[in-house]
Amino acid sequence: MNGKLAPDKEILLVEDNPDDAELTRIAFAETGGDYRLRVVSDGAEALSYLYACAPAELPALVLLDLNLPKLDGREVLQAIRAEPATRSLPVVVLTTSAEPFDVDKVYALGANSYIQKPVEFERFVEVVRQIGLYWLALNQPPTTP
Amino acid sequence: MNGKLAPDKEILLVEDNPDDAELTRIAFAETGGDYRLRVVSDGAEALSYLYACAPAELPALVLLDLNLPKLDGREVLQAIRAEPATRSLPVVVLTTSAEPFDVDKVYALGANSYIQKPVEFERFVEVVRQIGLYWLALNQPPTTP
Repeated sequence: MNGKLAPDKEILLVEDNPDDAELTRIAFAETGGDYRLRVVSDGAEALSYLYACAPAELPALVLLDLNLPKLDGREVLQAIRAEPATRSLPVVVLTTSAEPFDVDKVYALGANSYIQKPVEFERFVEVVRQIGLYWLALNQPPTTP
Repeated sequence: MNGKLAPDKEILLVEDNPDDAELTRIAFAETGGDYRLRVVSDGAEALSYLYACAPAELPALVLLDLNLPKLDGREVLQAIRAEPATRSLPVVVLTTSAEPFDVDKVYALGANSYIQKPVEFERFVEVVRQIGLYWLALNQPPTTP
């Protein structure tokens, strides 16, 4: 709660575009936070990873793109909310779309927050920094997600 | 998306302790944000207000204390999530408790985020500033809450 990211917390980034994943990795690195960023590149891999986690190993935050191979972001979110072990995991949708239909749909499916990916790199870094500060240093995560 | 709070957005603060309400008002004023803070002091008043709002008048954020007269915060949250017109409203629980039972319960009831009220004033102002920046300037709210 001192404005720094809490140490040793994991963020699961679900992103199929390697350039966007790398950009997010660089942006998080620039924020100087002390956490692990794990990247998976499709929806099915995201669910396999989460379902295999022991409760204490679950990430503190899932950063979820919407357009993903195999299972898209909406289906991943629906599956996370349907499974008791992952039901309360904080999920932030980070995507290029700002279509009202997408926004409303992901809230209806139980997303905690929806953020549009900024196009400009400096703004992107700032947005990623704010996401990290809010969800890893300020927000109190569930003890049993 | 430029780090300033979006203009003309409303935050509904549900807080029965007048000192805490005043502190939150001062803290928000110090953040320099351009929005309206509406304060209601019990759970029943919160629901009456929300249910009477036209969709376009709904607040961008509900800041909800847990221990409230008439209806407590958990009941208010449950009622907000049960009603189609308010189902997707962003609700942040801001309370003194950090009891795992409270935290897990409010996530199970559909809170977007849980933040423990800091005791120290300067830290409180900083936390309120971050809440405002995140939910009013960064987060994309539902178009039809």
